[in-house]
Amino acid sequence: MTQIRPSIAVLGGTGHEGAGLAARWARAGYKVAIGSRDVARAVDAANELSRAAGGEVVGAGNVEAAAMGEIVVLAVPYAAQRTLAREVRAELEGKILIDVTVPLIPPKVARVQLPGGGSAVEALQQELGEGVRVVSAFQNVAAHQLSALDSPVNCDVLVTGDDIEARETVCQLAKAIGITAWHAGPLANSAAAEALTSVLIAINKRYKVAEGAGIRITGIPEQP
Amino acid sequence: MTQIRPSIAVLGGTGHEGAGLAARWARAGYKVAIGSRDVARAVDAANELSRAAGGEVVGAGNVEAAAMGEIVVLAVPYAAQRTLAREVRAELEGKILIDVTVPLIPPKVARVQLPGGGSAVEALQQELGEGVRVVSAFQNVAAHQLSALDSPVNCDVLVTGDDIEARETVCQLAKAIGITAWHAGPLANSAAAEALTSVLIAINKRYKVAEGAGIRITGIPEQP
Repeated sequence: MTQIRPSIAVLGGTGHEGAGLAARWARAGYKVAIGSRDVARAVDAANELSRAAGGEVVGAGNVEAAAMGEIVVLAVPYAAQRTLAREVRAELEGKILIDVTVPLIPPKVARVQLPGGGSAVEALQQELGEGVRVVSAFQNVAAHQLSALDSPVNCDVLVTGDDIEARETVCQLAKAIGITAWHAGPLANSAAAEALTSVLIAINKRYKVAEGAGIRITGIPEQP
Repeated sequence: MTQIRPSIAVLGGTGHEGAGLAARWARAGYKVAIGSRDVARAVDAANELSRAAGGEVVGAGNVEAAAMGEIVVLAVPYAAQRTLAREVRAELEGKILIDVTVPLIPPKVARVQLPGGGSAVEALQQELGEGVRVVSAFQNVAAHQLSALDSPVNCDVLVTGDDIEARETVCQLAKAIGITAWHAGPLANSAAAEALTSVLIAINKRYKVAEGAGIRITGIPEQP
């Protein structure tokens, strides 16, 4: 008997961060759908990931991919976040949406610039409404590390969301690919993870970190 | 020959965070002045710290303490930050001011609530003007850990500021008390450290962390 794993749709799965997550979930035995505006690119990326990581990966347009996923991951640049979320809204009802977006505003990506004074994901949750269980996670993991499939990820993940059960599911999804994940509070607390990405970029520049700096949470006693 | 160490004034040095920092600097051989609204309390705290940590610690009113410090540390609750800074402004000209303030807004201290959509310290720098070299640091270190003088601090410090030389001085001041400190970018990036404190409080609650959770930066190659 195998454990039943939810199917995961990664919108923006042709980008570095999305592809890295998709590859790790595919290898861990999850069914993965890669979504992109460009269906041909999504299919190509899916085939490549399937070869590299093993497992079942399909490519599709964003709406079709969102329809396939029991859990949907939004891994697009900040400029595309809201538009894409609106576009696939009908496919998200009742589902968990994991937002990986970081509000980087080029060219000063090493400078914290939180939009409208809060986390980008809170605005997204408001836009999508209560029918979508938005959880924020994975902002601080370097894409570079995700795609090095045979190496462990040297960064913890802060998981924030107002739906605690959905948050727990996302923590489990992180753990399934070997990443330590922490319940980090309500969706408002995503501001910390979003801001921290610019800090890590600043640290990468200053200390010449090729692999991508990350964070670990310290001081937690062993959990039962 | 002994190395010349700047004198440090810790305003709010009767509070837990300020007292912990003051004790560690005193033990490391810095001259420390404890500032408080209440001179008698400052003197008492200074005597107690001097006994516990060794070294030279004096207590004074905030203005007098600020005048004594070549470097001034602001370690008061958020509600008192701006008022106190204004009060001692005349003593800060040309000096480094290390702001330790976290914009916690009770009672929801485990929820990120950045004031006016940015870091609290940026507003402070604007208020004080360019004559004061404001650096933000130490927001994520639990007071509990600072005051356990014989134990190492299990948390890195993010140091942000627009004056890179001042930032470097603060990194050295952290290292002098055994704390790993990182240049984390401009003052705007203090938003990450400020927000992270609420995340750490949320983690402390969720995972029942008595000592106080902290962070470590990972992935940095050994520095020369």
